[in-house]
Amino acid sequence: MNQRQPGSPVGLHRVIDPPGALPQAATCLDASPEIWPDEVRVRVERLNLDAASFRQLETAHAGDGEAVRAEVLAIVAKRGKMQNPVTGSGGMLIGVIDEVGPASTLGLAVGDRVASLVSLSLTPLVITDGLRRWDGRSEQVPAEGSAVLFGRSIAAVLPGDLGDELAMAVYDVCGAPALTARVVEAHAARGVPPTVAVIGGAGKSGSMSLAAARRSGARRTVGVVPVEPEATRLLAAGLADDVALADARDPVALAAAVEEHLGGRADITVVCVDVPGCEHGAILATADGGTVIFFSMATSFSAAALGAEGLAADVTMLVGNGFVPGHAAYAMDLFRAEPGVRQMFESRMAP
Amino acid sequence: MNQRQPGSPVGLHRVIDPPGALPQAATCLDASPEIWPDEVRVRVERLNLDAASFRQLETAHAGDGEAVRAEVLAIVAKRGKMQNPVTGSGGMLIGVIDEVGPASTLGLAVGDRVASLVSLSLTPLVITDGLRRWDGRSEQVPAEGSAVLFGRSIAAVLPGDLGDELAMAVYDVCGAPALTARVVEAHAARGVPPTVAVIGGAGKSGSMSLAAARRSGARRTVGVVPVEPEATRLLAAGLADDVALADARDPVALAAAVEEHLGGRADITVVCVDVPGCEHGAILATADGGTVIFFSMATSFSAAALGAEGLAADVTMLVGNGFVPGHAAYAMDLFRAEPGVRQMFESRMAP
Repeated sequence: MNQRQPGSPVGLHRVIDPPGALPQAATCLDASPEIWPDEVRVRVERLNLDAASFRQLETAHAGDGEAVRAEVLAIVAKRGKMQNPVTGSGGMLIGVIDEVGPASTLGLAVGDRVASLVSLSLTPLVITDGLRRWDGRSEQVPAEGSAVLFGRSIAAVLPGDLGDELAMAVYDVCGAPALTARVVEAHAARGVPPTVAVIGGAGKSGSMSLAAARRSGARRTVGVVPVEPEATRLLAAGLADDVALADARDPVALAAAVEEHLGGRADITVVCVDVPGCEHGAILATADGGTVIFFSMATSFSAAALGAEGLAADVTMLVGNGFVPGHAAYAMDLFRAEPGVRQMFESRMAP
Repeated sequence: MNQRQPGSPVGLHRVIDPPGALPQAATCLDASPEIWPDEVRVRVERLNLDAASFRQLETAHAGDGEAVRAEVLAIVAKRGKMQNPVTGSGGMLIGVIDEVGPASTLGLAVGDRVASLVSLSLTPLVITDGLRRWDGRSEQVPAEGSAVLFGRSIAAVLPGDLGDELAMAVYDVCGAPALTARVVEAHAARGVPPTVAVIGGAGKSGSMSLAAARRSGARRTVGVVPVEPEATRLLAAGLADDVALADARDPVALAAAVEEHLGGRADITVVCVDVPGCEHGAILATADGGTVIFFSMATSFSAAALGAEGLAADVTMLVGNGFVPGHAAYAMDLFRAEPGVRQMFESRMAP
């Protein structure tokens, strides 16, 4: 099948309906297992449905697992991808590479066991086992079939020595440390190494961002957390030079905590806490000429834009892009090199 | 009154309720005309109510101008600022500086006629004439009274040779050209001068951004517009090296238009079009390592963040901060230096 013309790196050649849409917006993809020259095919082992999607399916079918399974099969058969038509969300998959197109640049090899880091909502998928090993009662779906990665896509090899769950947790937040590192390095290159505040420093993306900031040359770091037990854990993990207690939704309190613990406003503020209303505090906590990186999906674009204007704050505000080249490998390195990061992850994953 | 202790540069010392809130979030400010050392007092000439706020008031009172006037007076008396309690929005004001605190750094002098570029929703305000010259039927409110600018605030001197309306239109969008210039210059400083696409290039912020990009050393610029008459006007104004027609909500069409007219994806894409759904197209139209600046308030944070991840796009995405030091003067210079900008503004303001 490698006689085909080069595909579109973002998968436009797989879109059946509506023509010209991006794969995520499409209602129907060509999921045939034959690959274009720049594509990679994955033999699927497991789907992890997005939590919002699974909840919707479970509720719609009043917890009837058989009905949930039938609907997932119907969705995939009809759309050529597992995208919940109500929530729009997908999830991710784990599988083994079984063919690599000659023009692929993803760096994957046949036999690699990988996690796909782009959403199932845009990934061509065929299911061949009728999901017979799944009872329809959990987001974890054992499955057989094939999926396709486009020329520009993201997949990370699962390390053999970590459990899938831990590896997936690392990959899930891998954009945050990579972008934090890039911003810290760029700031340091302009002169003095920066001070860095990580709001939500005890979470997964937060603890990784703290470790990345220090490794990239931050002059001083502070992790801000809302409650005492998190402060204790983060201090014990040794990932931040200092730990501050503050409610990130209280702008004045947040800025005061950062100023006190860093000896002034932060050069770089990283927002990793998934609650609404943290924009103004993050802006107020950041020095003139500094940068705020918003990783929280609860961020309001207009609150950030209007907040900075209302505060006459000369800060650069970045939308936290989950993709930075090399982000998965960087995050895994950091995880292995920093016992404190692993400590924070395991404390959150404990049952 | 200048014996007072220094105030908070963002006006925290003026907040009465709730204590510790920022002025914009406060329900009651101390609007007394006596200023703190870093403040400036303005003798008010006119309020421009925010369009959303005026519409709400007009609807609530079924167009009864007397009732609208009474409610505005009541709001200002109760809150110490003109912030519509339903919409949360304010507007801006025009007035003459009548006292400058010794510690003020805003660069204003007694007698300057200024427009306040921060929202009325955070500006301490007292009205002394009962708004007797206003019939309650228009957003333009002739008023007497006093307003206060904080240590960190934004006001721009109104030039005597332009009408207030034109000057206000320039100041209204002045953040866009200033930030565009900064990003273009930073990119050029890293090596090759960048190519720049401005989505919504025929609008006020768009035409200013095109002019700023060229002046800052862009290698080539394209303005993207949705309809032929705008394309004709923008071409005639001569602000862009090229003009492209495309629907910004169609990612594939937008990216194709930009690639065709710039000879490849844009190094910098500036989104100035206030319709939802332009995030993916802007990302797709931008080269690896490039930057997208979102100025549109219709931007969805999550669509931008998840879109870049789904497209594995290594682009820096900026929240368009409306404040950049010197932005008002920069915009006014650009407006005077570029007849094409004035042409675009006047074509939009014509009745």
